[in-house]
Amino acid sequence: MPRVNGELPYTGKVGAEVTIEQARELAEICVLKGLSCLEAELGSLDKVEQVLKVTGFVQSAPGFSQQPKVLDAASELLQAIFGEKGRHARSAVGVAELPGNTPVEIEFVFAVNANK
Amino acid sequence: MPRVNGELPYTGKVGAEVTIEQARELAEICVLKGLSCLEAELGSLDKVEQVLKVTGFVQSAPGFSQQPKVLDAASELLQAIFGEKGRHARSAVGVAELPGNTPVEIEFVFAVNANK
Amino acid sequence: MPRVNGELPYTGKVGAEVTIEQARELAEICVLKGLSCLEAELGSLDKVEQVLKVTGFVQSAPGFSQQPKVLDAASELLQAIFGEKGRHARSAVGVAELPGNTPVEIEFVFAVNANK
Repeated sequence: MPRVNGELPYTGKVGAEVTIEQARELAEICVLKGLSCLEAELGSLDKVEQVLKVTGFVQSAPGFSQQPKVLDAASELLQAIFGEKGRHARSAVGVAELPGNTPVEIEFVFAVNANK
Repeated sequence: MPRVNGELPYTGKVGAEVTIEQARELAEICVLKGLSCLEAELGSLDKVEQVLKVTGFVQSAPGFSQQPKVLDAASELLQAIFGEKGRHARSAVGVAELPGNTPVEIEFVFAVNANK
Repeated sequence: MPRVNGELPYTGKVGAEVTIEQARELAEICVLKGLSCLEAELGSLDKVEQVLKVTGFVQSAPGFSQQPKVLDAASELLQAIFGEKGRHARSAVGVAELPGNTPVEIEFVFAVNANK
């Protein structure tokens, strides 16, 4: 969830109350939040061997079908951070309702080498 | 799917025909069904090393955004059963339509030691 | 995504503009597309040890709850191709909006032996 200091910077449906640009910002925040959780768990992001899978849920206004454009912001950031290790499989899905009215929610799966 | 003897105890959208309390019951049934499938496959739940990931889909009425409250019932049950091994990553998503009009559908990923 | 030569054969919501039969065709195309990506990545599908998980998102008209019937087409094709290795866990979900107005989007997880 793209919370900053416990608050969602934007709420609502993408394509209505929330623009694609705002949703892309939220997608980037999701990446940073995900990596921060992972770092807390692992001690260091150097243990990441590969970003495996990204599943992005976009709270979409009726008729909004540009979910990939939103998720691209997350994918590009992951690749900027991890290079070749940042390549990943991805699903982008538009859903009607997300927790707390968040416009974007992203699930990440990483392959890590815990012994590294 | 939270079927009991092949039947869904409740059907409809959470936040409309189905209350949060009823949806939480269904989330618990999903856990028990999931564990029962896993036990049938593995022979014993002792082989579970970790609950890895829970993805919960809640068939949500327009404007319903308390999906995490529904999924908490599943998370709490998993932690009650597995203790520290029950800690998991989780996504909670609100969707418009689920199979057979079920209010809740949950996907579980477990790490197991098949040789144990 | 079930694109053929870069185009979706059908677009719209299943249960409204798109029939179950058409959606089943798309589900089969998703399987073939998924396997073709996997083959490009691995060199050969002989390296597949098991189809692990299929998550199918069906862009559903209000009240449409036969998502499993759509996904069955994908599951049956996987089992026809891989036999026992084609057995998999599956979630079928109905969502309001999918990228590019596709009626069906499917996510596959395979276990592969890269050294084979």
